[in-house]
Amino acid sequence: MKPREDAVLSTMQDVPLLISRILTHGSTIHGDSQVITWTGEAEPQRRSFAEIGARTAQLAHALRDDLGVVGDDRVATLMWNNSEHVEAYFAIPSMGAVLHTLNLRLPPEQLAWVVNHAADKVIIANGSLLPLLAPLLPHLKTVEHVVISGPGDRSALAGSHAQVHEYEDLLAGKPTGYDWPELDERTGAAMCYTSGTTGDPKGVVFSHRSIYLHSLQVNMAQSMGLTDQDTSLVVVPQFHVNAWGLPHATFMTGVNMLMPDRFLQPAPLAEMIEKERPTHAAAVPTIWQGLLLELTANPRDVSSLTQVTIGGSACPPALMAAFDKLGMRVCHAWGMTETSPLGTIARPPAHAVGTDAEFAYRITQGRFPTSVEARLSGPGGERLPWDGESAGELEVRGPWIAGSYYNGPDGEPLRPADKFSEDGWLKTGDVGTISPDGFLTLTDRAKDVIKSGGEWISSVDLENALMAHPDVMEAAVVAVPDDKWGERPLATVVLSEGSTADFASLRAFLAGEGKIAKWQLPERWTIIESVPKTSVGKFDKKVLRRQYAEGELDVTKL
Amino acid sequence: MKPREDAVLSTMQDVPLLISRILTHGSTIHGDSQVITWTGEAEPQRRSFAEIGARTAQLAHALRDDLGVVGDDRVATLMWNNSEHVEAYFAIPSMGAVLHTLNLRLPPEQLAWVVNHAADKVIIANGSLLPLLAPLLPHLKTVEHVVISGPGDRSALAGSHAQVHEYEDLLAGKPTGYDWPELDERTGAAMCYTSGTTGDPKGVVFSHRSIYLHSLQVNMAQSMGLTDQDTSLVVVPQFHVNAWGLPHATFMTGVNMLMPDRFLQPAPLAEMIEKERPTHAAAVPTIWQGLLLELTANPRDVSSLTQVTIGGSACPPALMAAFDKLGMRVCHAWGMTETSPLGTIARPPAHAVGTDAEFAYRITQGRFPTSVEARLSGPGGERLPWDGESAGELEVRGPWIAGSYYNGPDGEPLRPADKFSEDGWLKTGDVGTISPDGFLTLTDRAKDVIKSGGEWISSVDLENALMAHPDVMEAAVVAVPDDKWGERPLATVVLSEGSTADFASLRAFLAGEGKIAKWQLPERWTIIESVPKTSVGKFDKKVLRRQYAEGELDVTKL
Repeated sequence: MKPREDAVLSTMQDVPLLISRILTHGSTIHGDSQVITWTGEAEPQRRSFAEIGARTAQLAHALRDDLGVVGDDRVATLMWNNSEHVEAYFAIPSMGAVLHTLNLRLPPEQLAWVVNHAADKVIIANGSLLPLLAPLLPHLKTVEHVVISGPGDRSALAGSHAQVHEYEDLLAGKPTGYDWPELDERTGAAMCYTSGTTGDPKGVVFSHRSIYLHSLQVNMAQSMGLTDQDTSLVVVPQFHVNAWGLPHATFMTGVNMLMPDRFLQPAPLAEMIEKERPTHAAAVPTIWQGLLLELTANPRDVSSLTQVTIGGSACPPALMAAFDKLGMRVCHAWGMTETSPLGTIARPPAHAVGTDAEFAYRITQGRFPTSVEARLSGPGGERLPWDGESAGELEVRGPWIAGSYYNGPDGEPLRPADKFSEDGWLKTGDVGTISPDGFLTLTDRAKDVIKSGGEWISSVDLENALMAHPDVMEAAVVAVPDDKWGERPLATVVLSEGSTADFASLRAFLAGEGKIAKWQLPERWTIIESVPKTSVGKFDKKVLRRQYAEGELDVTKL
Repeated sequence: MKPREDAVLSTMQDVPLLISRILTHGSTIHGDSQVITWTGEAEPQRRSFAEIGARTAQLAHALRDDLGVVGDDRVATLMWNNSEHVEAYFAIPSMGAVLHTLNLRLPPEQLAWVVNHAADKVIIANGSLLPLLAPLLPHLKTVEHVVISGPGDRSALAGSHAQVHEYEDLLAGKPTGYDWPELDERTGAAMCYTSGTTGDPKGVVFSHRSIYLHSLQVNMAQSMGLTDQDTSLVVVPQFHVNAWGLPHATFMTGVNMLMPDRFLQPAPLAEMIEKERPTHAAAVPTIWQGLLLELTANPRDVSSLTQVTIGGSACPPALMAAFDKLGMRVCHAWGMTETSPLGTIARPPAHAVGTDAEFAYRITQGRFPTSVEARLSGPGGERLPWDGESAGELEVRGPWIAGSYYNGPDGEPLRPADKFSEDGWLKTGDVGTISPDGFLTLTDRAKDVIKSGGEWISSVDLENALMAHPDVMEAAVVAVPDDKWGERPLATVVLSEGSTADFASLRAFLAGEGKIAKWQLPERWTIIESVPKTSVGKFDKKVLRRQYAEGELDVTKL
């Protein structure tokens, strides 16, 4: 629609949505709020948002004046969740450069690949991670400077081609204010590579605009809805999709952050909850499962923690119910690197609150916020209705949803046809249904669905049903080739210690109470010690499929 | 900062922030939520967001196909708060036209002036407002169509130059879907003229972007923070700065709206609270003062209503305390037409909650959200510190803050130097202080400050202190000329029925307990029947100044 000659122009100011604004707001209006970093010592490190604001300015001066970071240079971080990582989160984009968070759980060769692909100029690393970084560094040709923060032996970096700096030395004496530039809000601010299970990792570049809008959403009462009366235990790593936006969102509202640094084991997590009394936590289910075992073995006062956002993969309903009993209300969220990540969040609708229907809503992936448009695409690309029954691949669109990947082989943005539709929507690779009131239920990854005799069997439904069995710790179901049906499910099961359950009884359990249709019940069963996980804690089913193909699993056929 | 040749581009989708997205979201994902409109009958009108979505599409078809609305034509509304007004709110901007809400409390000549200045093509009016519209219509030459909704005698429009339509007839049979255009988010979406006390009214044009961002803010837990479990009683008129953004914000989250239509008197308001049990209300203090008297005379069960957002002018602390006793927690917000309007909101900081300091925070205007930057400008234009003591004129900047007014005499945007600084900030005309933690306390309008002997006396401080007296219903203090001091305060007081308080005792009350410094105490006193109000319910002090100047007030000098 072309404006007419006497077009009505908005009289609003043209002010860009910038991360430097979030920083300035948080470090002044919420200057008393704190980032509390666990150190393993008697006392954690406590830094106010005001101090972090000042140190962020110092870091930016150091990066510009001492290390020569200009324009859109990429500055990488290889760090745990801690206050220095928060400083990097704000300094690098605010000065106009691009923050590249490195996933410290990636295999070393992939880590080297992403640093080289992003052409990072600087790496800020925790001292405790030098054993990982040092052997890689000779392969990171674009890296001119390494900045080390926190305890750890520096000697392994001797003789490196990169200049090595101490984080605190760089900051010392620098001005505590910085004249942040007025950038275009669509400028790249932070990048994160997907830990894809096939092919090279792919870079997603978040803009100032996308991060700002996402932060507003995280703070909406119907999302996480935290205020400065809250303290959030940020277990989800800062290298994993901006820790779900929490460092930015908390600076908008003064929410205190409790950062576990490298102390991600169940015992220290339980200790920090008891001592620092967070009201909220954000984590993937596997970490939370470990915490439950720890709290069962060694009970502690964790009563402060009433709200837990779980994402990364679905929280098994049995685990959710167990946490309900502890007074920790789990709220499901769904997202991926390409969705910044908030795609849905499972706050039950008003009519279900306090009724029997509530739990059924809570175990869905949740509702889409206003800024995320969703549609379901059938096997033939047809649009499927939101009827709660038609299962299709989820496609999404919105201002914080990726429309391409960074820097393809020809230097142009990468838009693979299996990831982006022709009209620009993201194909999530997740298969599920959407109810008429907009609740998403994921049934599987498109690649993990079991195609049996022309029908789909959801591996996730089988896993959830199995994990509800009291003797089953974990279960993963994968498709294996079958002469008659094309594919059939293989159930791989981790039993709890001392369990005497046999496969026939597990199969009968699945069949009971109308849980699973008879034709979907697995014939093939195997016991494993633990389900293999990806670097971000998801079930790594390609490992199981390979082990099966190579005859490494001891499979019983019922 | 110029991007380098290998600039890192964001890989985010470029999706505009549009009102049509808010509409589609609300009418699908929150399709069951309701707009409940009071009718004065036994049952209110109830319409689901899904129905409103369908009717909005029908209205857009009617405007385009039957009335010829194209491009950025202005479509005005002369309506109370009701569901049809919500439909107009969404249909007009979503189709690419501009909604112009007419303030039905403006003097007729000003109303005609703004319609002609905006060159409105269509007016949608409530039948109950035809007695106001009919005599004006001959003067509204640009208006081609009048659309009437709801009860009221239509005969006064006979012989009008404009075509007259029935709202429901226009909608009947139209398609219930509309292919909303993909607009630039900076397109004008809605306009609202300021009811300035001097000079011609000035038009503020909100963009899709500004309304969308403002709606996200309204929904943040630290702002109004409502969810689909809430029902909001929207007393603040839809013609008054988009009803503080509530119609848009509620469609983002499924909050039900209770709309009083023309039933704004204390008795029906009390009745609708008892019957429909809203959890939240938004209103100006004068309406709420009337409600308090009504509830005192005729107690009702208003226990559902726990949160009241008060804006438009400051809520006297005594009134706030009275509502606390009723279980209605008043939350102050400050804003103006030029600020969309959310400028601040008074949620106390975490450290004050539950302490004696809490009330002191609640009677401030509140804290600025991330998207509103603020500074104080002294009499000489110098920047003043945020020390809670230095009083200056408040200036603000942000994506939902006006940077100009619509269509000056030469067709260019209007940027009067007394309203906008050279660097584009809005000069609010409000004088106050900002505390180090960002809480704004307004002491006065710049034009109402009393300049006495080279010092400033705040008229508002005097009014609040006076209104805390049990016999004082209302009090307004204005500057009057004084030979010795330049200006001195005149106290105009409305006493409660049967009161025997005299001026000397009121003056002693002000002086007591260190409330007001001795040199600030008024010498001039007068009793009035009620404080004159502007069309939006604010004290109209220019009337009092004129009455004093013309000798119409019976003034006692102590």
